[in-house]
Amino acid sequence: MTDAQAQLIAEAEQRLGPKGVITDPKEIEPWISDWRGRVHGAAPAMIAPSSTEEVAEIVRLAAKHRVPLVPQGGNTGMAAGATPPADGSAILLSMRRMNRIRSISAENRIAIAEAGVVLATLHDAAHEIGMRFPLTLGARGSCTIGGLTSTNAGGTQVLRFGTMRSLVAGVEAVLPDGSIHSGLSGLKKDNRGYSLDQLLIGAEGTLGVVTAVALKLVPAVAARAVAWAAVDNPERALDLLRFLEARTGSVEGFELVPQDSLELVLKHVPNTRAPLLGEHKWHVLVEATTADGQHEIGAALERLLGAALQQGIIGDAVLASNDAQAEAFWKLRDTISEAERAEGQTLAHDISVTVADMPRFIVEAAAEVERRFPGVIASGFGHLGDGNIHFHVRAGAHAAPDWYESEGEEITRLVDDLVTAAGGSISAEHGIGQLKRAEFARLAPPGRIHALRAIKQALDPFGIMNPGKLVP
Amino acid sequence: MTDAQAQLIAEAEQRLGPKGVITDPKEIEPWISDWRGRVHGAAPAMIAPSSTEEVAEIVRLAAKHRVPLVPQGGNTGMAAGATPPADGSAILLSMRRMNRIRSISAENRIAIAEAGVVLATLHDAAHEIGMRFPLTLGARGSCTIGGLTSTNAGGTQVLRFGTMRSLVAGVEAVLPDGSIHSGLSGLKKDNRGYSLDQLLIGAEGTLGVVTAVALKLVPAVAARAVAWAAVDNPERALDLLRFLEARTGSVEGFELVPQDSLELVLKHVPNTRAPLLGEHKWHVLVEATTADGQHEIGAALERLLGAALQQGIIGDAVLASNDAQAEAFWKLRDTISEAERAEGQTLAHDISVTVADMPRFIVEAAAEVERRFPGVIASGFGHLGDGNIHFHVRAGAHAAPDWYESEGEEITRLVDDLVTAAGGSISAEHGIGQLKRAEFARLAPPGRIHALRAIKQALDPFGIMNPGKLVP
Repeated sequence: MTDAQAQLIAEAEQRLGPKGVITDPKEIEPWISDWRGRVHGAAPAMIAPSSTEEVAEIVRLAAKHRVPLVPQGGNTGMAAGATPPADGSAILLSMRRMNRIRSISAENRIAIAEAGVVLATLHDAAHEIGMRFPLTLGARGSCTIGGLTSTNAGGTQVLRFGTMRSLVAGVEAVLPDGSIHSGLSGLKKDNRGYSLDQLLIGAEGTLGVVTAVALKLVPAVAARAVAWAAVDNPERALDLLRFLEARTGSVEGFELVPQDSLELVLKHVPNTRAPLLGEHKWHVLVEATTADGQHEIGAALERLLGAALQQGIIGDAVLASNDAQAEAFWKLRDTISEAERAEGQTLAHDISVTVADMPRFIVEAAAEVERRFPGVIASGFGHLGDGNIHFHVRAGAHAAPDWYESEGEEITRLVDDLVTAAGGSISAEHGIGQLKRAEFARLAPPGRIHALRAIKQALDPFGIMNPGKLVP
Repeated sequence: MTDAQAQLIAEAEQRLGPKGVITDPKEIEPWISDWRGRVHGAAPAMIAPSSTEEVAEIVRLAAKHRVPLVPQGGNTGMAAGATPPADGSAILLSMRRMNRIRSISAENRIAIAEAGVVLATLHDAAHEIGMRFPLTLGARGSCTIGGLTSTNAGGTQVLRFGTMRSLVAGVEAVLPDGSIHSGLSGLKKDNRGYSLDQLLIGAEGTLGVVTAVALKLVPAVAARAVAWAAVDNPERALDLLRFLEARTGSVEGFELVPQDSLELVLKHVPNTRAPLLGEHKWHVLVEATTADGQHEIGAALERLLGAALQQGIIGDAVLASNDAQAEAFWKLRDTISEAERAEGQTLAHDISVTVADMPRFIVEAAAEVERRFPGVIASGFGHLGDGNIHFHVRAGAHAAPDWYESEGEEITRLVDDLVTAAGGSISAEHGIGQLKRAEFARLAPPGRIHALRAIKQALDPFGIMNPGKLVP
């Protein structure tokens, strides 16, 4: 521990009391590695403020002592963006004690939640007033509003409601100079200069600490329908999406699943079975919802799928007959990564191209990766309607035990090159964090890198906000 | 003209040819004052590039010679944000030759328009493919996509579709170092660091020159209904909005009009008449639209207004029976400013508070202004559903001829103080430009001013982008 860190910790303890400053290594331990256990950091202390004013005081102390802070919510990020540097130079700033929902209103359709509110808690609070916060993802029981905002999180309902950026009505944050940016005014129109709210969304804590967020709510779901459809190829899957979107505004989930991913799930995940009896190459999970209780959403989706079948867009389809079956369909989609890990070494890439280009990209990129690295198995699954798939490359049966380390980096570079050549993004929803920083630096236009560095340097001249993340 | 300016002009002429560089004062004259004729600037030349590459070259030359540029579209701004400094130190950068719609697609619901495309031209192009760009305002025949984006423009359809920020899918711009930021990829999800797109929206050309924008389209309007309703006070007007919004998603215009504004219109604007015969204190113009041709929008709105009448929310209402009558209703709203100017000296304030607070704010702020400045008449009209009204203060019958100059500034400071105390914005949709810079500096939190200056300095270290605008 440096002298500066010791001084910061002592002064923080004076202000926050013993509950606010944790120095016991055992208590810090769970929070210094990323949740997938791939990146390990170190921190001499974890400071846990309980109010925006306390966050501001800690940031001012950090600026004064030139000690960097690593803001952290549920620590469920996929790019190690909340993991401290391994040299112990930074202090963890846990936002988990700031967990109040300050207000929630069905009339205004707005909830104001502090950064440490867990997503599932917000879901429940919205549900209680007949409303809904329409963003969800696997980590909803742990991930926090601050982290979701700072990573502009996506999930499985982006198709209809957009990413966090579409759902955030305002951001409160402590800037690196310790001043409080208060964007929670609730104004629908405000043109007083650059939008700091928008700059903070997706900034991964490198420009300030998000302390609270005003979030848009929508009416609660009155009914939903989930179906599983089989298609010949990703192009037909996109045809189905366009067919449905031209006829209904209610589709909010549209997930592509290749047959070999489904087979891995059936092999490794207990209590799963294929929704359709026949043999098919590709599958789509469709979820439609309505806030209108009188609308027969299941019958409507079934009719549309029947018409799509008649037009030859799909090969077959089945509607989940109840909630348990709907959950069973989603389980097939949600356990693909788990099944792949059970099968062997897997490289994951969270990438996007335009929606129109995605069907061709999936097929051509998989073929190219398999050609260049004989023996591997490449495939894409996920949010076809967002142009965002998880492009996974599996080691294959004859791979060396150190395949991930030896060949992984080279394969990832190839995938990132293919994505970049297609005008796509090497990080569709997970962010840059630590894990994608080198690839971002390699592939982003120099003008963009220059602009990001200039903004970072301007707002955080002492480099105290989440060092080593995002900005190359 | 300075030597540096002369060199820049000569080099620009070499690259762009004679069409691209205008130095004839008579040709420049119409563009060096703001359109309301209140702010007069000077410029030794107007450079008019015709492509993004040409813009980049000019910006590089400007950086090399340290000569500032003032980007300009239709020159219809309300805050003199496109008017050059009076000392002639800057050169006008006209974007009007960049007027191509690069692509437009009903399937993707996206148009890519260059900065100089006039809004009405885009409306027409969208209409031709059965789509619609759902933002409009009085200056639609002159204002350009670049200016609309750079000011995050609003207008009369914000209630349903949001401001430009909601409608922009991506921005292409030349940054102050001459690099091209290309945000037109069409990706729905892309988390590769800070959003420069969002930073450029509403930056009023101070961080770069917007050269093209990807814009979201919605299906064309199949039918619309326009109604005029009378209410006792602004609180009842808001009740009506909430009543309608709970029952239909089709309301897209909701404009509040006080009786005395209506009377001025009837007095000064030819061919106008009151929609309702009775005497009423406040009025509301409601527009509802549908993209669904089978939907009886007029009958539906009439039924809802009938129910609102029965519940005592409104005092009376009339549905426009045809397009001509609908236009006549809109004319009553759109000519208020014109009628006020005909009546005498008027101070305009484009302000916002929360939607819930607006009814009380209008009444209380008007009373306070009239109390503090005896003889003046204060009232608010406009976008009640956005929490954004035009708060106008008229000189009254006995005012001195120099009222605007002598008392105007003091009145504006009072209005801005009242808005700020109510947690509102002194610029809801017009931006800061030159005209609101002093008030912005006086009233914004120091931390915000500091952050804006830091970002400006970081991205535009030589101060070549639209000097003297927005950043205090």
